Amino acid sequence: MTDRIRDYLRARRDLGQDEGPVMVLDLDVVRDNYTAFARALPDTRVFYAVKANPAAEVLRLLAEMGSCFDTASVAEIEMALAAGATADRVSFGNTIKKERDVVRALKLGIRLFAVDCQAEVEKIVRASEAAGIAAGEVQVFCRILCDGAGADWPLSRKFGCEPEMAVNVLEHAHRHGLNAYGVSFHVGSQQANTEAWDGALASASEIFRECALRGIGLSMVNLGGGFPTKYLKQVPGVETYGDAIFRALTKHFGNRIPETIIEPGRGMVGNAGLIEAEVVLVSKKSEAEDEVRWVYLDIGKFGGLAETMDESIRYAIRTDHDEDRMAPCVVAGPTCDSVDVLYEKNHYPLPVSLSIGDKVWIEGAGAYTTTYAAVAFNGFPPLAQIVI
Amino acid sequence: MTDRIRDYLRARRDLGQDEGPVMVLDLDVVRDNYTAFARALPDTRVFYAVKANPAAEVLRLLAEMGSCFDTASVAEIEMALAAGATADRVSFGNTIKKERDVVRALKLGIRLFAVDCQAEVEKIVRASEAAGIAAGEVQVFCRILCDGAGADWPLSRKFGCEPEMAVNVLEHAHRHGLNAYGVSFHVGSQQANTEAWDGALASASEIFRECALRGIGLSMVNLGGGFPTKYLKQVPGVETYGDAIFRALTKHFGNRIPETIIEPGRGMVGNAGLIEAEVVLVSKKSEAEDEVRWVYLDIGKFGGLAETMDESIRYAIRTDHDEDRMAPCVVAGPTCDSVDVLYEKNHYPLPVSLSIGDKVWIEGAGAYTTTYAAVAFNGFPPLAQIVI
Repeated sequence: MTDRIRDYLRARRDLGQDEGPVMVLDLDVVRDNYTAFARALPDTRVFYAVKANPAAEVLRLLAEMGSCFDTASVAEIEMALAAGATADRVSFGNTIKKERDVVRALKLGIRLFAVDCQAEVEKIVRASEAAGIAAGEVQVFCRILCDGAGADWPLSRKFGCEPEMAVNVLEHAHRHGLNAYGVSFHVGSQQANTEAWDGALASASEIFRECALRGIGLSMVNLGGGFPTKYLKQVPGVETYGDAIFRALTKHFGNRIPETIIEPGRGMVGNAGLIEAEVVLVSKKSEAEDEVRWVYLDIGKFGGLAETMDESIRYAIRTDHDEDRMAPCVVAGPTCDSVDVLYEKNHYPLPVSLSIGDKVWIEGAGAYTTTYAAVAFNGFPPLAQIVI
Repeated sequence: MTDRIRDYLRARRDLGQDEGPVMVLDLDVVRDNYTAFARALPDTRVFYAVKANPAAEVLRLLAEMGSCFDTASVAEIEMALAAGATADRVSFGNTIKKERDVVRALKLGIRLFAVDCQAEVEKIVRASEAAGIAAGEVQVFCRILCDGAGADWPLSRKFGCEPEMAVNVLEHAHRHGLNAYGVSFHVGSQQANTEAWDGALASASEIFRECALRGIGLSMVNLGGGFPTKYLKQVPGVETYGDAIFRALTKHFGNRIPETIIEPGRGMVGNAGLIEAEVVLVSKKSEAEDEVRWVYLDIGKFGGLAETMDESIRYAIRTDHDEDRMAPCVVAGPTCDSVDVLYEKNHYPLPVSLSIGDKVWIEGAGAYTTTYAAVAFNGFPPLAQIVI
């Protein structure tokens, strides 16, 4: 918890406004994170993954600092532009786009698009024509599959294609007059293994070579996100990732290192945010001596902590009693939904003195919380956010 | 799809307003469902589980028809009252309540509360005092654990206590002057086994006997929900459930059958709603002959289909090509989140002719969709609802 967040929460409590959970996000931490990324990878352009936290204050700060933006929808493109980013600093990074949304994006000035199949290439070709924009001005990069080993938030095969297919997708784009710009991949979110980029960069360099043989000069590798934030476990610093990525780039591309992009989301805002919540109930299911405690908070899976799904993300939960004896608990949310349980397979240690009405602080909650919250499940409002 | 829903969707398309997914809910179906419950269990009071779908039109219709309401929060209590229900027809059925919310509920006239531990009883005692209401006017029922075998939507140990403990919880309420009113349980949502109520009613009758020995006369059994709606699989009709429950009541309570309550949610509104969505992309991950198709819709796990979590609920997805040859697909949502995949472990058969831009219709989508939708994940708006 930063001093600024502590002061804010104290003032909120003094005013008697501490009803319901709130996520407080400290922009100073975001500023430091951006600076750390820029320093760790000085030749790489930073595209902030807007989906992690699209708060206008965050986007404005990053736009001022020179960040670019990776967006998932036309709404996110509009937010990035409204925050002061010029269109040449915004990519439409979703491989699943409606053709009419591609037209909208092109009309908003966007020229950089992700694809992972020929059908998506063809949408962009038709959309360029519809928007009256020369295909050659439009850059596409093809996403390839990555196994995601070492990442806490599971990576499926949802995005990307096999590297052999990527060559054909890029050739398809090239033949239709688009600018076949490069390759992207994602090593999985909350990736603790700094060497995870090595295998994907080997595939990327192979695609560069194969495309060159077909007369297509690729120039960019999008290294994706995956940079972790600190939850309970320690994670390596950004500079360690920077070093590992630079080594892998040199290993696979020699002295012809391509233009690079990173897309941090969690790593940019995760540790900037903290949720204050309240203990609603502490109870047991039977009167047996060894029965485990259930601790129910006023925030759960549907109120912003969706990433506890399958207990993937294990947040650090702090209390005012952390000096006391700890005992394992089941931690659950406040809704009448039986799946709204945060930690049960792996019990969570909390102080035995923790009581109904106590506040708890959930750290590392700046990313993937506010926008994940359900609109009104069980009548509970979505997670409030305060940016300071 | 009902004729009324078909007409509405046609008109929407003719007006060119079919941008983005929509859930259309036909009140005639809700009316029929309410009537079927009332007929199948004529001596049982129906408490509609508001969380399944809190649309004002649904609540107003059910209030007019004489339904009572099971609520999870003060906001849901206010919605039920605003729809015309009197406070004596509303229960606060969440076992996890802030004490100040109990006070609010009491001040709104609510007198029926769920508990599953002594701490929750004590909250209600203190809240009654704070609200200036005699404890004896306040009814509490104790929820017991149930194993949920046979249910599609997983039931955890989140709600309820062991039956032996329930006796003590009810005695605690009785000693503090509250009206120890009865027992509740829940056999799991989308419960296909009509005999599931039998075991829980055996426990309930045991608690009645044990309480009677302690001088506490319980009078009510809350049979919970669990009544299924039709997704892909056929499910038994409401009357089959009614018969099975009546048999189990007679078996365990003899000729002293208690007052009963049911809390249908999914069973009341599930089959009344249909989602129209659009195919955004059909693609493959490689060029191999046997590679599976991925079908990406403009609705996914974070846009209203949260119950596809762990592929629990398998919706019926209809298309205009259902006469064509079918082949298994992975079905996924439109967001840049790798877990936003609906059906992957068990591939979903869809027509080989299904194409980008085609509409699809997701049946049985009236319950647990709109309010589960994320507020703005990836910049996508929450699921729109039209009640006709």
